[in-house]
Amino acid sequence: MSAAARTEARTANLLAARRDRLGPSLSVSYHDPLEIVRGEGQYLFDRAGARYLDCVNNVCHVGHCEPRVVAAGQRQLAVLNTNTRYLHESILEYARRLTATLPPELSVCYFVNSGSEANELALRLARTHRGARDVVVLEHGYHGNTQALIDVSHYKFAGRGGQGAPETTHVVPLPDPYRGSHKGYETPSGAAYARHVEAAWERVIASGRRPAAFLAESISGCGGQVVFPAGYLAGAYAATRAGGGVCIADEVQVGFGRVGRAFWGFELQGVVPDIVTLGKPIGNGHPMAAVVTTPDIAASFANGMEYFNTFGGNPVSCAIGLAVLDVIQEDGLQQRALEVGERFMRDLRDVSARRPLVGDVRGDGLFIGIELVRDRATLEPAAAEADAVVEAMRHRGILLSTDGPHHNVIKIKPPLVFTRENADEVVAALDEVLAAL
Amino acid sequence: MSAAARTEARTANLLAARRDRLGPSLSVSYHDPLEIVRGEGQYLFDRAGARYLDCVNNVCHVGHCEPRVVAAGQRQLAVLNTNTRYLHESILEYARRLTATLPPELSVCYFVNSGSEANELALRLARTHRGARDVVVLEHGYHGNTQALIDVSHYKFAGRGGQGAPETTHVVPLPDPYRGSHKGYETPSGAAYARHVEAAWERVIASGRRPAAFLAESISGCGGQVVFPAGYLAGAYAATRAGGGVCIADEVQVGFGRVGRAFWGFELQGVVPDIVTLGKPIGNGHPMAAVVTTPDIAASFANGMEYFNTFGGNPVSCAIGLAVLDVIQEDGLQQRALEVGERFMRDLRDVSARRPLVGDVRGDGLFIGIELVRDRATLEPAAAEADAVVEAMRHRGILLSTDGPHHNVIKIKPPLVFTRENADEVVAALDEVLAAL
Repeated sequence: MSAAARTEARTANLLAARRDRLGPSLSVSYHDPLEIVRGEGQYLFDRAGARYLDCVNNVCHVGHCEPRVVAAGQRQLAVLNTNTRYLHESILEYARRLTATLPPELSVCYFVNSGSEANELALRLARTHRGARDVVVLEHGYHGNTQALIDVSHYKFAGRGGQGAPETTHVVPLPDPYRGSHKGYETPSGAAYARHVEAAWERVIASGRRPAAFLAESISGCGGQVVFPAGYLAGAYAATRAGGGVCIADEVQVGFGRVGRAFWGFELQGVVPDIVTLGKPIGNGHPMAAVVTTPDIAASFANGMEYFNTFGGNPVSCAIGLAVLDVIQEDGLQQRALEVGERFMRDLRDVSARRPLVGDVRGDGLFIGIELVRDRATLEPAAAEADAVVEAMRHRGILLSTDGPHHNVIKIKPPLVFTRENADEVVAALDEVLAAL
Repeated sequence: MSAAARTEARTANLLAARRDRLGPSLSVSYHDPLEIVRGEGQYLFDRAGARYLDCVNNVCHVGHCEPRVVAAGQRQLAVLNTNTRYLHESILEYARRLTATLPPELSVCYFVNSGSEANELALRLARTHRGARDVVVLEHGYHGNTQALIDVSHYKFAGRGGQGAPETTHVVPLPDPYRGSHKGYETPSGAAYARHVEAAWERVIASGRRPAAFLAESISGCGGQVVFPAGYLAGAYAATRAGGGVCIADEVQVGFGRVGRAFWGFELQGVVPDIVTLGKPIGNGHPMAAVVTTPDIAASFANGMEYFNTFGGNPVSCAIGLAVLDVIQEDGLQQRALEVGERFMRDLRDVSARRPLVGDVRGDGLFIGIELVRDRATLEPAAAEADAVVEAMRHRGILLSTDGPHHNVIKIKPPLVFTRENADEVVAALDEVLAAL
């Protein structure tokens, strides 16, 4: 058997074992799936030793198997890994370091194990604080896989297998400056979209209900890497607070310096949320996440019902979380995301000038979307083409994925150790692939 | 300053920092909290180097910082830690090994990050499979900290800060052979309790609703380490299935050989659930958990809505999970739990003969409860005394905790490396503490 035939047979066996042993609700990346066995920095390696440039994993934020993060985890694994009912310095030091990156109002931390657990707790905090249930969320938003989060994730409840919105969930248009009803990144567009939030709360209040929370990612991921127009979150937050609700910023995808110009996505919009949720990049792949809120909201939540999380805030997670913060700072990764990302987007826009399929290039730092359209006037989504590009790039050793309601947005959100040369390689390959399409 | 004064000042500082930086809904163990900095086997060590015998941590199942588990985690941390959208051998091998410990019907795995995520997913599986919402649960049950789980956890929704049961949750009496309305461990008691489940489903069906699931721990933890009478789960499962519902066994507290006579708690009752949830001990402290179900239920859940879990089933978690299974098997820890546990309970019953405060000693393997009562006829709970015993034992270097609706049950659920000598030490100390009370 040739090496290629052996790989093919092995892939078929692994896929068959997945079908037997794993829930079928989980899809595999790429038509020709990859068996990845090793990671290093911005690279993944398959079983045959082939190297792939990872442009899509915002979880391994400071690089796959970053040595300082690995060492911190290895060290603490051998010393102690227990729960937060004992005193331990590292959880307190980690809370101090984490809150130091946030506005002073956000000073109280809850440590959990996943972005879903973080958003789930954020909803509970908001609803308990306000004694209300109603939530305004964005079209195409995704906040996690628990039932309460599916119920506020338009991407899920309005998607395949979904059961629609419960009466307490109110969906407003995604403030999409490219494809939405209000165009452009300027203040009038932001204000026009924010008026939908205001109107949603007016309807809630008119129907005799009360606002609990406005919940939104600071840049929409599943919506298609959509950066909001100026003033959008300021207007949405003001309308929410005027109605008595609190504002939750879901930073699970975009936080920790990825957006370059700021450490947190919400800062790009000049707002201060009442609750922020942190996940994916927080532990560079280690299962951990956090919720940070104000002392007021935390006090309301302490209504007699204990919140205990068995694994949350354990010393291994805290050691890893501290190491991630150290590496971001020591290596200047936020600044790097800014510089590499800006130049990357400039070069991608040059590609779009040559390749009419590229309708839009947008993003902040190393959170970038490339929207493919068949017609720049009608914006007809080029979903099949986006899929073909991703597959072709995979065969050139570059890992990308698609997202957005029309599956026509190519996502770029690599580990922040991504270099200019990596970006150049992606730009050149993409240009060729688009030319060949 | 004396060493004791220094420790006291340090404790006060750490507590103050917790008040500032961590949500106040989280309590600390013991009136005089411990700063634990190291763990080894069945022992924890405080900052001053004092050693404590851990009788309560069922998470660090094969011993704190078990060297083979630590090595497996350390090794994989340095190689690859990414998501399950790529093929990887370890998740398939782990699924194979895990399902090999379960009845053949239970062959499809979902990997998640916590017992809460596991029970949350189990509920979604059951409800999607049956197209129904109604759930029967046990009095004093606890299944996790998400909203959907609080809504099925009597311990939470009927406790402090709780908002009562939603109309889809139906509570049946805890089948408590000691304190409940039907006494003893024999079949008549089990059948009498199971009739409550039957009656609950009859009421659900009579009201025009349909059964989704019966959800119960295989031994009740928060209910006070309550072992069910013979035939209880068989009767409850039969009644549930007759109504069209599925049966979920929550093994988060008791699974993985702890109960000695079997690897899983439900086996003690001679039943096969449709869905089992695994958590706490599965990764010896690493944040991981799993749901295992039948191909039928998994197929129903694959209704077009993807279930993706960012961290669940990553190669580090699978490597650690595999090492835990290896250690349990190589070191014969299930057999050890049986032998040490049986002897331990026999000796604790000897204590109860001398100390009238001990009303009941019960359990399976190394999952033991000691219920303290002021009067063996009225069973008046001795909560203050239980608390005093736990505090006194802590000052003797033995870590215990209390639970149960009356806070009068001392829980024993140590790492399975716990020895006969450890048990002897606990028995002797407990006897002295009870004598001095």
